[in-house]
Amino acid sequence: MNGNDTGGGRGALPPLEPKADRETVRRHNLSLVLRTVRDAGEVTRAGVSARVGLTRAAVSSLVEQLLESGFLTESGKTFSGQAGRPGTVLKVARTGVAGLGVEINVDYVSVCVVDLAGTDRVRLVEHLDNRGTDPALVFARAARTAARALASAAEQELTPVGAALALPGLVASGTVRQAPNLGWTAVEAETPFADALAALRPDRVPLRVRSENEANLAALAELWFGGLGAARTFLYLTGEIGVGGALVLGGELLRGANGFAGEIGHVTVSDDGPLCRCGSRGCLEQYAGQSALLRAAGVDERSGASGVAELEHRAAAADSRAVAALTDAGRALGRVLAGAVNLFDPDAVVLGGIYRPLLPWLAPPVGEELTTRVVSGLWSADGERLRPSSLAADAVRGAAALVLQDVLEDPVAYARPPAAGAAGV
Amino acid sequence: MNGNDTGGGRGALPPLEPKADRETVRRHNLSLVLRTVRDAGEVTRAGVSARVGLTRAAVSSLVEQLLESGFLTESGKTFSGQAGRPGTVLKVARTGVAGLGVEINVDYVSVCVVDLAGTDRVRLVEHLDNRGTDPALVFARAARTAARALASAAEQELTPVGAALALPGLVASGTVRQAPNLGWTAVEAETPFADALAALRPDRVPLRVRSENEANLAALAELWFGGLGAARTFLYLTGEIGVGGALVLGGELLRGANGFAGEIGHVTVSDDGPLCRCGSRGCLEQYAGQSALLRAAGVDERSGASGVAELEHRAAAADSRAVAALTDAGRALGRVLAGAVNLFDPDAVVLGGIYRPLLPWLAPPVGEELTTRVVSGLWSADGERLRPSSLAADAVRGAAALVLQDVLEDPVAYARPPAAGAAGV
Repeated sequence: MNGNDTGGGRGALPPLEPKADRETVRRHNLSLVLRTVRDAGEVTRAGVSARVGLTRAAVSSLVEQLLESGFLTESGKTFSGQAGRPGTVLKVARTGVAGLGVEINVDYVSVCVVDLAGTDRVRLVEHLDNRGTDPALVFARAARTAARALASAAEQELTPVGAALALPGLVASGTVRQAPNLGWTAVEAETPFADALAALRPDRVPLRVRSENEANLAALAELWFGGLGAARTFLYLTGEIGVGGALVLGGELLRGANGFAGEIGHVTVSDDGPLCRCGSRGCLEQYAGQSALLRAAGVDERSGASGVAELEHRAAAADSRAVAALTDAGRALGRVLAGAVNLFDPDAVVLGGIYRPLLPWLAPPVGEELTTRVVSGLWSADGERLRPSSLAADAVRGAAALVLQDVLEDPVAYARPPAAGAAGV
Repeated sequence: MNGNDTGGGRGALPPLEPKADRETVRRHNLSLVLRTVRDAGEVTRAGVSARVGLTRAAVSSLVEQLLESGFLTESGKTFSGQAGRPGTVLKVARTGVAGLGVEINVDYVSVCVVDLAGTDRVRLVEHLDNRGTDPALVFARAARTAARALASAAEQELTPVGAALALPGLVASGTVRQAPNLGWTAVEAETPFADALAALRPDRVPLRVRSENEANLAALAELWFGGLGAARTFLYLTGEIGVGGALVLGGELLRGANGFAGEIGHVTVSDDGPLCRCGSRGCLEQYAGQSALLRAAGVDERSGASGVAELEHRAAAADSRAVAALTDAGRALGRVLAGAVNLFDPDAVVLGGIYRPLLPWLAPPVGEELTTRVVSGLWSADGERLRPSSLAADAVRGAAALVLQDVLEDPVAYARPPAAGAAGV
């Protein structure tokens, strides 16, 4: 062994401090209590104490601070079930801190505001074609929609503390490096959107804005709001105009060395296949993307969501061209997925976007390819590991929820009126 | 957000302990000092103190314990460069604890003993055909070779504290689930090997044995002993009878949900391609594995290492069939690698095994495919991200070094004569 395995940033362990800092401990424990209440939905102080392993006195003091800062509410009486003492029920607050999610996709813009409990409280969707549009105009339009959502949130006494943009392309450091289906290359996203939104707000206060690939956010939404159960390592695929993908490893997004991981839509199906907008040939997107699928089925490929509904309708009526188009797309999808499963060994593959309604026709050919081509033999034809995405989980909700992760990890930093004095108590 | 994102094993944070346990701190700091000395090669106590941020007094006490336990040695005099005081130079011990690595591959068994400094001190290789051989016999033969290596290590006063088996297949929980090229399915590995080795040792004491996929261990060896520099996220491919692969993410092996990640040899190149031993069709192994490559070049595919040398010789002499075989294999390799890079976004791709000597002919077609097919555009034709593996790094050395990771992480647990009293001092 040489220096490489411990000398790098990630491998190097700092010396342990003999005594942990009191304020650090308290902030950590405030986060722990807040997350425990959120995960439980409703819980007494005694219940929190039992779950986190801190004394009841410690939990009471932490809960007091979270109540004062507006992160928790208490209501009603219940019996704690321990020693027969009645306790009030704690919940996370339905007002106060919230997250703003904004998805800019090829043919729509979607905005939502999510509260600390994870509930979608405001949602606005605009269908419009963003292809080939000046990015400044796209951000200005998205900001207008976001401003309306913020006004609606304010009426519900919700205050977004940040925003996250979901974008259909390679996103890193606030910039869209490549979004072939939008026709964008090297487009700065966070600052133009933040500025456009600040200009529309009554107080002109800029929100902190971050940005992320839309499939990554849809995968996080699936993890947080979906029905994956124990599966915490999965591959997420979303069929849209493009085909987006994300890899989640043990509950964490796998971003790769530059943040560009998960580009399953540009894995090659056939090296002499149709030219792709990315410049390569025979990409999965050219076989299983929305346009390719509609075209193969004889449905107008520019017809968007209504075209997908039409395809579903024809397939349900056993229209042979529709069924053949779905079978062929499913085979291409299955081959690429089998390669990804051989590389990554996930617990599950989740299919979202247009693949969700079309799964009844896609699942058999996909399952067949997985059964034949995955060397571990764990992907049998029963298809249990192949799942539709949850209706409750989409990229824009994932974006809004991402903002709230920061709050949950350090509520003190987001406490309402100056809570500096409260820390360390 | 619901319970999924923090309720699972990985996401749940325990409450912080207000005070850290003294013995835990000391054991952690002993590990830190030992790794610092190993990474530095030679260093004074003052140098250790400067690197780890502990006081000189604390470092001196920790160094004393590591000297007494036989993990460090000191020698010579030097000037510390700080306040002009002379200090002796610390190094990790070249005797004492060591790791035993055993690679069982399709046509060879390789054994090595590595010391705490990471140096290969004993190495034995036997060429023999393990295909279709009773696993019990394979383990017995490997144990005989390992026993000879242990005898040789004992002469050098090295004491392996454990062994790791490198195996060409899907390995989890001590069992080979699938090794298509050995013809093994569900073969228990660790216990049979440990028992066979214990029976051959003078003291009959069993070594603790673990097992791992050989490409995973070769990738770790590349990380620890290779020339990757700052690249800590990479894809490793090794050409042998099979084609093995491994993914390293930020310096950690990506094992997947079941430990079966990295099976790049069974990614499909062409869905109607030749039948593979895994049961699928058109796997990369059938285009770029050793047998396929030798056959396409007109070299006897059973000729093993000498056949690869012959292929290299013919390609160097511009034999058109040899060059064409390498170009075709390179194209298949490049296509599959481009897909893997799109999915995983590594800093580098490392090619080992037979690909290392053949890289001059493989790199151009591989580079061309990567340039065309990787959507991020980061894989330009200069080929800087495509690298040959290091000669100093191979699976068996990685296996031996893996054993020493445990020692480095908690030396107290491996201290020679009972060091229980020393901990907590």
